Amino acid sequence: MNPTLGVCYYPEHWPEEIWATDAARMVDTGLTWVRIGEFAWTRMEPKPGQLDLAWLDRAIDTLGNAGLKVVLGTPTATPPRWMIDKHPDMLARDVSGQIRKFGSRRHYCFSHEGYRAESARIARILGERYGRHEHVHAWQIDNEYACHNTTLSYSEAALSGFRNWLAQKYQSTDALNRAWGNVFWSMDYDDFDQIDLPNLTTTEPNPAHVLDFKRYSSDQVIAFNKVQTDTLRPLTDKPLIHNYMGRELTFDHFKLGADLDIASWDSYPIGFLSDRLEADEADKTSYLRQGDPDNQALHHDLYRAVGRGRWWIMEQQPGPVNWAPWNPAPLPGMARLWAWEAIAHGAEAVCYFRWRQAPFAQEQNHAGLLRPDSVAAPALAEAAQVAREIKDFGEVIPAQGHVAFLFDYEADWVFGTQPQGADFSYFRLVLDAYRALRRAGLSIDILPKDADLAGYKLVVAPGLAIMDDTLKTRLAEHDGHVIVGPRSGSKDQDGAIPVPLPPNLPGLDATVTFVESIPPGAQDLLEDAGSFVHWSERLEGTANVTLKTKNDHPALVTSGTLHYLAGWPDRAAWDHILKLIAPAAGLYLEVLPPGLRVRDTATHRFAFNYGAAPVHWRGIVIPPAGLHWVDI
Amino acid sequence: MNPTLGVCYYPEHWPEEIWATDAARMVDTGLTWVRIGEFAWTRMEPKPGQLDLAWLDRAIDTLGNAGLKVVLGTPTATPPRWMIDKHPDMLARDVSGQIRKFGSRRHYCFSHEGYRAESARIARILGERYGRHEHVHAWQIDNEYACHNTTLSYSEAALSGFRNWLAQKYQSTDALNRAWGNVFWSMDYDDFDQIDLPNLTTTEPNPAHVLDFKRYSSDQVIAFNKVQTDTLRPLTDKPLIHNYMGRELTFDHFKLGADLDIASWDSYPIGFLSDRLEADEADKTSYLRQGDPDNQALHHDLYRAVGRGRWWIMEQQPGPVNWAPWNPAPLPGMARLWAWEAIAHGAEAVCYFRWRQAPFAQEQNHAGLLRPDSVAAPALAEAAQVAREIKDFGEVIPAQGHVAFLFDYEADWVFGTQPQGADFSYFRLVLDAYRALRRAGLSIDILPKDADLAGYKLVVAPGLAIMDDTLKTRLAEHDGHVIVGPRSGSKDQDGAIPVPLPPNLPGLDATVTFVESIPPGAQDLLEDAGSFVHWSERLEGTANVTLKTKNDHPALVTSGTLHYLAGWPDRAAWDHILKLIAPAAGLYLEVLPPGLRVRDTATHRFAFNYGAAPVHWRGIVIPPAGLHWVDI
Amino acid sequence: MNPTLGVCYYPEHWPEEIWATDAARMVDTGLTWVRIGEFAWTRMEPKPGQLDLAWLDRAIDTLGNAGLKVVLGTPTATPPRWMIDKHPDMLARDVSGQIRKFGSRRHYCFSHEGYRAESARIARILGERYGRHEHVHAWQIDNEYACHNTTLSYSEAALSGFRNWLAQKYQSTDALNRAWGNVFWSMDYDDFDQIDLPNLTTTEPNPAHVLDFKRYSSDQVIAFNKVQTDTLRPLTDKPLIHNYMGRELTFDHFKLGADLDIASWDSYPIGFLSDRLEADEADKTSYLRQGDPDNQALHHDLYRAVGRGRWWIMEQQPGPVNWAPWNPAPLPGMARLWAWEAIAHGAEAVCYFRWRQAPFAQEQNHAGLLRPDSVAAPALAEAAQVAREIKDFGEVIPAQGHVAFLFDYEADWVFGTQPQGADFSYFRLVLDAYRALRRAGLSIDILPKDADLAGYKLVVAPGLAIMDDTLKTRLAEHDGHVIVGPRSGSKDQDGAIPVPLPPNLPGLDATVTFVESIPPGAQDLLEDAGSFVHWSERLEGTANVTLKTKNDHPALVTSGTLHYLAGWPDRAAWDHILKLIAPAAGLYLEVLPPGLRVRDTATHRFAFNYGAAPVHWRGIVIPPAGLHWVDI
Ligand SMILES: [Zn+2]
Ligand SMILES: [Zn+2]
Ligand SMILES: [Zn+2]
Repeated sequence: MNPTLGVCYYPEHWPEEIWATDAARMVDTGLTWVRIGEFAWTRMEPKPGQLDLAWLDRAIDTLGNAGLKVVLGTPTATPPRWMIDKHPDMLARDVSGQIRKFGSRRHYCFSHEGYRAESARIARILGERYGRHEHVHAWQIDNEYACHNTTLSYSEAALSGFRNWLAQKYQSTDALNRAWGNVFWSMDYDDFDQIDLPNLTTTEPNPAHVLDFKRYSSDQVIAFNKVQTDTLRPLTDKPLIHNYMGRELTFDHFKLGADLDIASWDSYPIGFLSDRLEADEADKTSYLRQGDPDNQALHHDLYRAVGRGRWWIMEQQPGPVNWAPWNPAPLPGMARLWAWEAIAHGAEAVCYFRWRQAPFAQEQNHAGLLRPDSVAAPALAEAAQVAREIKDFGEVIPAQGHVAFLFDYEADWVFGTQPQGADFSYFRLVLDAYRALRRAGLSIDILPKDADLAGYKLVVAPGLAIMDDTLKTRLAEHDGHVIVGPRSGSKDQDGAIPVPLPPNLPGLDATVTFVESIPPGAQDLLEDAGSFVHWSERLEGTANVTLKTKNDHPALVTSGTLHYLAGWPDRAAWDHILKLIAPAAGLYLEVLPPGLRVRDTATHRFAFNYGAAPVHWRGIVIPPAGLHWVDI
Repeated sequence: MNPTLGVCYYPEHWPEEIWATDAARMVDTGLTWVRIGEFAWTRMEPKPGQLDLAWLDRAIDTLGNAGLKVVLGTPTATPPRWMIDKHPDMLARDVSGQIRKFGSRRHYCFSHEGYRAESARIARILGERYGRHEHVHAWQIDNEYACHNTTLSYSEAALSGFRNWLAQKYQSTDALNRAWGNVFWSMDYDDFDQIDLPNLTTTEPNPAHVLDFKRYSSDQVIAFNKVQTDTLRPLTDKPLIHNYMGRELTFDHFKLGADLDIASWDSYPIGFLSDRLEADEADKTSYLRQGDPDNQALHHDLYRAVGRGRWWIMEQQPGPVNWAPWNPAPLPGMARLWAWEAIAHGAEAVCYFRWRQAPFAQEQNHAGLLRPDSVAAPALAEAAQVAREIKDFGEVIPAQGHVAFLFDYEADWVFGTQPQGADFSYFRLVLDAYRALRRAGLSIDILPKDADLAGYKLVVAPGLAIMDDTLKTRLAEHDGHVIVGPRSGSKDQDGAIPVPLPPNLPGLDATVTFVESIPPGAQDLLEDAGSFVHWSERLEGTANVTLKTKNDHPALVTSGTLHYLAGWPDRAAWDHILKLIAPAAGLYLEVLPPGLRVRDTATHRFAFNYGAAPVHWRGIVIPPAGLHWVDI
Repeated sequence: MNPTLGVCYYPEHWPEEIWATDAARMVDTGLTWVRIGEFAWTRMEPKPGQLDLAWLDRAIDTLGNAGLKVVLGTPTATPPRWMIDKHPDMLARDVSGQIRKFGSRRHYCFSHEGYRAESARIARILGERYGRHEHVHAWQIDNEYACHNTTLSYSEAALSGFRNWLAQKYQSTDALNRAWGNVFWSMDYDDFDQIDLPNLTTTEPNPAHVLDFKRYSSDQVIAFNKVQTDTLRPLTDKPLIHNYMGRELTFDHFKLGADLDIASWDSYPIGFLSDRLEADEADKTSYLRQGDPDNQALHHDLYRAVGRGRWWIMEQQPGPVNWAPWNPAPLPGMARLWAWEAIAHGAEAVCYFRWRQAPFAQEQNHAGLLRPDSVAAPALAEAAQVAREIKDFGEVIPAQGHVAFLFDYEADWVFGTQPQGADFSYFRLVLDAYRALRRAGLSIDILPKDADLAGYKLVVAPGLAIMDDTLKTRLAEHDGHVIVGPRSGSKDQDGAIPVPLPPNLPGLDATVTFVESIPPGAQDLLEDAGSFVHWSERLEGTANVTLKTKNDHPALVTSGTLHYLAGWPDRAAWDHILKLIAPAAGLYLEVLPPGLRVRDTATHRFAFNYGAAPVHWRGIVIPPAGLHWVDI
């Protein structure tokens, strides 16, 4: 696959006179793709049923005729104000029951049937007009599902949808009462219509109630999306794409991705480090202008799985953004590095967000490739450089990673409902494990629980809350090393503790007899290096103890190639554990200088310097924000 | 009194087939008591008026026939879902006016008359059936009143109840306006129906308005409880008990306790240290797996007063819990130590919570004596050890403490409304003073303001916001040393500053001329040792200055045996003050190693090692979580 | 001008028998003014239309006959409870839509027409009775507009007022859509009645929408005030005053001040340091009992501008207050120092708040000149000392300051809506610059953007978000040095980024190409001293670079006497920048010991020691809380 670049563009924001110039400049920069349309509903349909698509025809033609391929967005993330008059109850409600009003974006409840029909209607209108258009080469459905905390809505529509969903799932309230353990505090129901949404309860609601509501809500996102893909499929042969957000776990992307052709995500490394990542203060300062050195890679690997191998960056941060608590500017070179890193992870395309900085409205401080006065911003030259470089580079041939990393959305819902420790987060646990693998120079494939694991010398599965017997057997029988835990298999399908107690892995005699969460400042010291932090489990059983705590409790137990990890390792502990297991698994761990990260394709090892200082690697010096590749 | 052990059990959570085995195992463990029923309303009355008590008959018989004594709970903390249909307005409202919905527990407003009648009804049903039952040896009314912040409700029922209560108290709005000082900001009322609940005001409401609402709300808890005790009294001769929570000061436990026979409390040392105690970070880490070394003792002494000498632990933490921000596991031995400490403070019974860990619902991560798979959890053996030890020990004979410590719920309401310093808390002030007395090896009796003080060589009364003349005279004339202050007597019955100014103690010429609250990081240094922190007062008058600040202001003034303390001493200052006063009072202060605490009965001095290291005491080594007793 | 002192008094709080004694004691203390009446509406009009002003007649006569001049307040900050029955919809709503209930003060929505009419009615009643009264020498309108966050209300009255205001401003929704950039996310409106208030939107609302709502809300405060001034003007010749709060920027004080004769403000140095000022922890501790050494001066200079030269302190902190998170007592001498500092800045009068501490209601812990038992509190003697000293001193003759400091309320609205960095605050930026000028010994005049700048050797204008061409030209052509920036001119009238890009100053070729916000712990190091913190800009252009960052970017660029500052200097950087510019501007910078601040009148240089240690200055020792003046 030969990677390409693109950009997000809003013709409706600019005078028609400059469209052609913009298009020519995009082509000059070496861009292939231009994404348009996803927020333009009022321009497409200024009043209910009164369409105005002539401007869009001209925009597509102008861009296409210049040589660009158009990604056309359905505008359903921004229903017009008149839509609220038509469907006054389509607005979502927040956890406190407040209506989330019109005036920004994503102002709709996924459960609302009326709005789903409207979404299908506008998708049909666009599909009929542009489905076979020569310049429209891909579609984006909606925009950043779940962003702004919109998956969970506590509206009337959600309430009634949830009751139906429960009735279909459980068939009887008796079955539901049993599954949820409602006997616990006399919480039993006689009728599905007695069941409320799990907000505003006197103290915390039943976690099974919450888990089902999260499952229901995830299903609504998928159903909402499917209404549009079902509409568009007969009307176009072009790939259907959604642009997912970073660290967004409120719906099952694997399920939603199954209805699409390509996964894409919106990569804002500096914004994400500021607003949604746990990192120690020293790292937050060191990587202030580069972003976390592992978070992008993790998402690349995740969305490659979501897209079943096909994935893009739909929005790539080009400069300072506007929406994080603090918004520093990237180091010169980062807009190049990020793009190349995505490509090394198999991205088919990387689109910068956005072409020209908008001087007005919510994102007026969000940099683009151009400044508001149309002068080139720093990232334009970097994009042009990447464009030249990928042309020279030629085909990027993907390779299977060294490590399979199992990832599960439901695990986040389970632990988010009952974290048991205030700083326990599934994603954080995943990121810590992923970071350790990356520090060791490994290339990783993130996979769903049911993925084929053939060929992987190492499988890592921390925090897989719910594991069925099939999965356990597959892991136990896997032809390679497997690290499971902590907390893996700790819940059954109903979110309750299974008996026999976890992890209950075939062939591994180890039982978690109790667990403890550990506050900041405390830890459970391990024997050779590092500590368990945040979380520690006490194990019983006859499995071999590969690693102990200083208090002489098992920290890692092993049977053959199957390992169970009984806590949350800190950095030193993770590094030590990988050194214990990787050689046996036949994996070579490269010692990398701080800030350097590598990624292998079938033909090359790429190295990316996230650090603020130059580093030596394989005989050359890589400057800050620099990258280098060598043949494998 | 020969102490006994017990356990909390939920037959309705488990198959009937295992009840007998469970009961036999409880007896084997040496347990005497089993508490059941308090959350089982839907099992007792699945539909309105349709009773099903046969299972409860069988459960009581199974447990009783095995040799256990049953404590039967009224299930009023968990009204069934159908109750909400019957009384839609029975749900409480939070301070922002939101309904606190069904779906967990304690979902009722104490002011709701209809629900009070339902509570009487179910209490009557249980009383008539089990009041004279051979195996029912005690009753628990409801469960953990006020838990989950449920004392204050901003519902319609509360509003109308509050207006009536005010009308009865004040008879006229003129009287109310005068008492509250409503002239201050033209807040006068002409009619009791104009008075709203004191939430959501533009800026802070009149503190007198809030104080009366807190008094009203406390009265409703007491009235709610009394409806049940009045119902049960004619139907049973067995003791009536309530299980109070830790650090719960929103209603007057002394008043509520007067309607019961025994006080009990739910002791979760590790959970409480994590979620509701101020302690410096080093202490929080040192005592992470033991709990605060003084908080249990304080509550034991408090609830002994609430129970007029008769008190239990109704729920004793056995392992990690689920509800605190972090939930570490107790050190091995703590489940024994905590029980023995309660016994040394005079507990008649200590019941562990709970028998078997529930794998489902809200508390699925809360340890029991058994694991969910019925295997013994670590605390089971500790409980069995305590059972053997108390049998060997024989009678525990209580003795009057060295120190009388006056405690007052209203003081917390007053200072909670107008703390004057963001970190001023009555309970924290009390705990700091209590800790100092314990570090000095003293045994303490906590007492209400009107208690008989005869025989006490030292009386301590910090923060007694409201003191009437009788109390002042009793303290001034007390035959022993008395430490009053800070802030004692600083408010009158209406919550206003009294004139003459405080403390206005007979025979002590000292007037608080102004006060200051002190932020963290600042302090008022004392002359010989330590500082005032959080709070400092400026005194005028001719009383002897026993201790000065470095700025030459009186810190402790004295007339005979009566002392007034003009600030909040830190640890070093408290230790110094006790060394100044105790010898004169005829009290011997034992020097204890860090982490060790002692408690005297009439015959023994018990020592408990809360530290994580072994300590030497009286020639022996006490290991961490160890205890020892010597004859007095 | 010969300065005078006064006090705030509430005759309605005290028995009539003591009024005369109080008045005599005020006169004895040397006070001239007594402010009364502003919270006494229920005493003036106990029931709708039923007036009782006889007590007020007697109070005014008692005070006046004793020799005091009365400032009479209109009581509109505290509408009686019956007013809410008359106008149930007059209450404001908070940002979450909740009604802000009766029970404290300021419980009204500025947009409510009915309440405006009531305000006019009571002002007319008072004006007709006391407008020509021999003892009434000034009027106070309402009390502390905006206090308790009351400018913005999300009520029905505000919604309807806002729609009308928008319709008048924009004439068509097309114009509004263009101005706001509503095309951005399909946020266009077809009808003004579709426009909602900008609260509770799904994610952040359009900043232009918010900015207009802030402008509208500011206008309502001004309109509300004008209804009263229009009513009183024909009825009295005495000056009309309002008492503004500290750090209150939600309405345009310059506009409101234009309808009044004198500006006054309520100065609580210790409360403000605790509750509303950014300062490093060391400074917060050093100045705990003195207040920030620059914040009072800044407000004095600001309100002198608001009052077009005529200004008072209407409420001067006399001792500990009740409303800050922590409320330490002032050092002895501060009640004198604060008064003299105000006088040195040109105050005509300084009134202490309050005469006698009220023992009841919300402010019962707020010190007065007297204690609740009528004994003198420490500040009484200090007030008397000031009274004697100002009598001896004679006339205070104001002088133009060395520096003109441009201040703009709208800038705070703009940056408050889109700070771009979580700790970016316009006021904080202003205070940091002001502090630097004060540390350098300069006297400052704060001025609105349209003020005459003639005679100023230095003009400072940080963060002037919106600058029109006239202002830019005036600054460029100013006959003296001018420092503009950071962020000055960064927005147009609609709150959007202007093109050409900022600062776009005549004659200065410098363009801000991008900006970055910087989190705590990070900084942009400057070449010679200090750093940019919080904010840094990247400049392009040919202007001379006067100061660079260590990364070799322009930090300060200059053309002639016009400087643009491209970041937020820390303390060391500000001191360095002033040393670069002041000599060229012909300003002498005095080296002051820490904690000492100076202020010049036409005849004297006054020095105030805010430090907790004595300092040497001009050959004498000034003790803590001490002051000194020398001839110029
Ligand atoms: Zn986006
Ligand atoms: Zn409990
Ligand atoms: Zn005030």
